[in-house]
Amino acid sequence: MDRIIYVNGEWLPEPQAKVSVLDRGFLMADAIYEVTCVLDGKLVEYDGHAARLQRSARELGIRVPLDDAGLLAVHREIVARNGLDQGMIYLQLTRGVADRDFAYPPQDTPPTLVLFTQAKNVLENRAAETGISVALLPDLRWGRRDIKTVQLLYPSMAKMEAKARGAEDAWLVEDGHVTEASAASAHIVSAEGALVTRDLSHALLPGITRASVLDLAGRHGIRVEERAFTLDEAKAAREAFITSATNFVVPVTRIDAARIGDGTPGPLTRELRRLYVETRRAAAI
Amino acid sequence: MDRIIYVNGEWLPEPQAKVSVLDRGFLMADAIYEVTCVLDGKLVEYDGHAARLQRSARELGIRVPLDDAGLLAVHREIVARNGLDQGMIYLQLTRGVADRDFAYPPQDTPPTLVLFTQAKNVLENRAAETGISVALLPDLRWGRRDIKTVQLLYPSMAKMEAKARGAEDAWLVEDGHVTEASAASAHIVSAEGALVTRDLSHALLPGITRASVLDLAGRHGIRVEERAFTLDEAKAAREAFITSATNFVVPVTRIDAARIGDGTPGPLTRELRRLYVETRRAAAI
Repeated sequence: MDRIIYVNGEWLPEPQAKVSVLDRGFLMADAIYEVTCVLDGKLVEYDGHAARLQRSARELGIRVPLDDAGLLAVHREIVARNGLDQGMIYLQLTRGVADRDFAYPPQDTPPTLVLFTQAKNVLENRAAETGISVALLPDLRWGRRDIKTVQLLYPSMAKMEAKARGAEDAWLVEDGHVTEASAASAHIVSAEGALVTRDLSHALLPGITRASVLDLAGRHGIRVEERAFTLDEAKAAREAFITSATNFVVPVTRIDAARIGDGTPGPLTRELRRLYVETRRAAAI
Repeated sequence: MDRIIYVNGEWLPEPQAKVSVLDRGFLMADAIYEVTCVLDGKLVEYDGHAARLQRSARELGIRVPLDDAGLLAVHREIVARNGLDQGMIYLQLTRGVADRDFAYPPQDTPPTLVLFTQAKNVLENRAAETGISVALLPDLRWGRRDIKTVQLLYPSMAKMEAKARGAEDAWLVEDGHVTEASAASAHIVSAEGALVTRDLSHALLPGITRASVLDLAGRHGIRVEERAFTLDEAKAAREAFITSATNFVVPVTRIDAARIGDGTPGPLTRELRRLYVETRRAAAI
């Protein structure tokens, strides 16, 4: 409760960090977000997150109220004000405050920009050592998952349903193919040793960590296949893992009842996590 | 800006009516809502809206913080405090404030309850006289549209796209069949004079006005067919209309390029609007 939160140019103690009940982010989920990891007090993959924020904003016609330098400055200031060494910065941008209407408000309506921090030990993550189990659930999200909106009720419901089934997370399934985890990209390593990751489309988020891991794999001589994979392929995979901004690379060792590989984190998964943390920590700004 | 808004037991002037940026309604669209029409300072179809609120809350495991009498009292008090004669009461209930996490917060987390009013001349609605045109757009919403959540970004986008195409609203289409309007139920009158309305499922909202209009039609000897209808059926319909809490019954006179009937509001549509307003105004509490 002692965080300092950014709301539309003001730095506020957490209990005072509020938005109008008429904010379209609250009333209509008319809002986008980004989560940037912080290591050693520095921003991990900042350029990727900043670029994706601009893309989401462009797709929805929401104005980003700060220029590139201003946005970076706010990220740095929130780290400093909260003395954050390790964790994440959450940013949310909404279409602003207006009388409730399905039609968008006038173009000059000021958007709402909120940033807050969450401390988290992202380097020492027990799940990275043990791996996680995932439950396969239908993907009931909307049709534009490439835009990073706050319409996160279904991922939240899926996470709870996965827990109810004794798993740590969900892998979402549409038309017999895996789309994503509840809040991460899903990957498998095929029997032939190829890294198989779903190709980008409206069905899934263009993950920043996803892209980096595919790039790292390619550079290290791993064959990368960007294509949708089936449930059966997933269950028969040699290795499986998820990627996200604050999980980096986390092994999946069970999918529903199927043990993946020998049931422990696979060697390629471990190596990709090591490479990711090493290179992105070194490149943090 | 001079409305009095209800936020968690407090009555606040509009500029002070705020919620935490950590509210799950703001961060994750983890929230449900209802809109109740007000006529002559009285609540229209209140029981239906109260029952649907309970259903939505039950489906998502969100606690309703007031009992039935308390909820009704708040509706009546907000009408009185705002001197509302005609318009609507908007109610939103969220899972409450918690550190951002896809997993739900502990069960004892207090939910957030917000109510505000919007004045609107619902009786004299120009669209009811002239009819509206609708554009057919793909239905990209999530898979549990029977729960009235605030995940309204796509309906909002569809409304804007419809306007860009010169129409007043959108009818959403999935697998060749109409699901709903952007924020209303969709109905047609077939060449044989039957009222055709999509049957309830996870694909659409169980509309309160929809149910009343089907009931009224049945009582007045109209054949009612509750089933999905195709785009071709819609374009060839004798009449078409939408229903919602604050539109009551509004004729649709054009669907994409197709003129419906003779391009003016049909007689059954007009009669159903008249019957709806007459009976529900008389029954308002």
